[in-house]
Amino acid sequence: MPHTLAVIPGDGIGPEVTTEALKVLTQATPAADAFEPTTYDLGAERYLRTGEVLPDSLLEEIRGHDAILLGAVGGRPGDPNLPPGILERGLLLKLRFELDHYVNLRPSRTWPGVATPLAGDPEFDFVVVREGTEGPYTGNGGTLRGGTPQEVATEVSLNTAFGVERVVRDAFARAQKRRKKLTLVHKTNVLVHAGAVWWRLTQQVAQEFPDVEVDYMHVDATMIHLVTRPQQFDVIVTDNLFGDIVTDLAAAVTGGIGLAASGNVNPDRTTPSMFEPVHGSAPDIAGQGKADPTAAILSAALLLEHLGLDAAARSVEEAVLADMADRSPEVARSTSEIGDAIAKRVAG
Amino acid sequence: MPHTLAVIPGDGIGPEVTTEALKVLTQATPAADAFEPTTYDLGAERYLRTGEVLPDSLLEEIRGHDAILLGAVGGRPGDPNLPPGILERGLLLKLRFELDHYVNLRPSRTWPGVATPLAGDPEFDFVVVREGTEGPYTGNGGTLRGGTPQEVATEVSLNTAFGVERVVRDAFARAQKRRKKLTLVHKTNVLVHAGAVWWRLTQQVAQEFPDVEVDYMHVDATMIHLVTRPQQFDVIVTDNLFGDIVTDLAAAVTGGIGLAASGNVNPDRTTPSMFEPVHGSAPDIAGQGKADPTAAILSAALLLEHLGLDAAARSVEEAVLADMADRSPEVARSTSEIGDAIAKRVAG
Ligand SMILES: CC(C)[C@H](C(=O)O)[C@@H](O)C(=O)O
Ligand SMILES: CC(C)[C@H](C(=O)O)[C@@H](O)C(=O)O
Repeated sequence: MPHTLAVIPGDGIGPEVTTEALKVLTQATPAADAFEPTTYDLGAERYLRTGEVLPDSLLEEIRGHDAILLGAVGGRPGDPNLPPGILERGLLLKLRFELDHYVNLRPSRTWPGVATPLAGDPEFDFVVVREGTEGPYTGNGGTLRGGTPQEVATEVSLNTAFGVERVVRDAFARAQKRRKKLTLVHKTNVLVHAGAVWWRLTQQVAQEFPDVEVDYMHVDATMIHLVTRPQQFDVIVTDNLFGDIVTDLAAAVTGGIGLAASGNVNPDRTTPSMFEPVHGSAPDIAGQGKADPTAAILSAALLLEHLGLDAAARSVEEAVLADMADRSPEVARSTSEIGDAIAKRVAG
Repeated sequence: MPHTLAVIPGDGIGPEVTTEALKVLTQATPAADAFEPTTYDLGAERYLRTGEVLPDSLLEEIRGHDAILLGAVGGRPGDPNLPPGILERGLLLKLRFELDHYVNLRPSRTWPGVATPLAGDPEFDFVVVREGTEGPYTGNGGTLRGGTPQEVATEVSLNTAFGVERVVRDAFARAQKRRKKLTLVHKTNVLVHAGAVWWRLTQQVAQEFPDVEVDYMHVDATMIHLVTRPQQFDVIVTDNLFGDIVTDLAAAVTGGIGLAASGNVNPDRTTPSMFEPVHGSAPDIAGQGKADPTAAILSAALLLEHLGLDAAARSVEEAVLADMADRSPEVARSTSEIGDAIAKRVAG
């Protein structure tokens, strides 16, 4: 049986990089595990053309697939016809919440030949497990006397033992397969209500993983440590908003913001998980064959791993690493040339 | 009339660095503007000895002063007799909230002779104006079914037009006296309720400052920009929690976490403002004369500026810069030697 794949190429450079990711995915997969892609036209373009963000019928179709591969969504910055946040909340977050993607997986590592912005150019390799379905991302809260001098606006972070425990357990399991160190990042000294449930469940789940070392770090201190000693991290587990912030800094310190891959994962496999590069749709370079498809290809590798196709996942990762080691700043390659080169290494 | 000063030396290296800050403060101030310090014994030590964090009577005494100089508070990490967060909430945040320190002022600049952790060692100079009295720091929220698998914990960010407008106006006024650029940092695409009031009031107050350029940046993207292009910032205005996170990264990228000064300011001057180094109490090096008092001295300079003693403030800053330019990594100086050297330059 082939794996059904919902492909959302999206906007800007999204379609270009997705084409290359699919090329490599196909190349890496033995016939018995072939993919059957269905393309969904979603994103800024569709919204501007039709006023639709994510019709319910399409959400239900997508839900029926084994996995989702997304390129990038987003229109031109400041487009007056595109209300701010509409695609983020109506499409990206909607998919995360509807498909219960409670593990937002963001590996962060340095790459051969890619300089970090840090002095001394350290090497490191860690993973952030960001909670994806609760915290300050639920949209909970509201506004009283909006637009007046008496306006009061609230933003409510919702944290449940159910939601925290499952993501913390996933993070411990990942740490156990890696260097056996887990760091909880939060702000327990100020956010006492949410902090207490994160703290308690981390301690509790730790009992099931006695071989994993547990550390705690305030989110503000984490900023300093990510810049001064990123080598110390193995698996970071954190809430939805802190994870958003920490993973952008993590990507920045690798020097490869454009190379970062991510997964929106439902580890229970009751819904399709979604894999996407962290970079945006970069409308300024769209359609010129200038986009680097590496992050999309690495996202495809995460997808393979999630589906249990470990050998294929490893071969894609190795092909990317080999390609990177060979890159030369003097030779500019097009999007498809990079995709071809990586696909060829996968084959070889 | 002398300026009355409530001095809270605190714990660890707090008293040592405060002594030097007072030395320099006194040296910098003409007789007519002399300071009259009263010391308040508050912090981990007092709590461990007496069980008191901040007795109401002391808070009222402190409120009667013209300004507050704080060293650092905090006991030994993991001390079982010191409940986590008790000093943070009972003392530091209590003072900020009770004294309505709505401008948490955190300058961030590179220093002569201090290498940044960034490749290429850029030079930059910006100020973060962090809201200090609302947002997720109000303690609002709670826990239902705590300690059970059905626990639900909420954390409520409170944002008022009153609170946002006043801090945004303060930030614009600072930008107008600097390089005339203000960057609002928030997460308006997700935190829509709070984001709307921050966005609206930034646009509104901008009308009063037509010569100040206004920019907006999501907090996650700000992580990347602080690492890759910190030179672009002049004044950043942001909420209490984002400000906590952004200022630690800002301090980290200057390379001088131990040099960062801060003010908890009530620009209306209806209460005393409080000035403190950003560094902690560093119990591991306390009492050894090893602590660098520079951040405490720079905090005293912010205090002088706040009280309108601009010439004195400038002379302290210049003395610090001159001292830094002369520092040599081979010559280790004690806390009091550094204080003496800076005081001497102020005098000279
Ligand atoms: C686009 C936005 C809603 C999203 C987030 O905040 O989660 C993005 O920043 C991310 O990290 O995937
Ligand atoms: C100690 C803590 C409560 C405090 C804060 O979160 O504001 C500190 O991190 C700071 O930035 O001054």
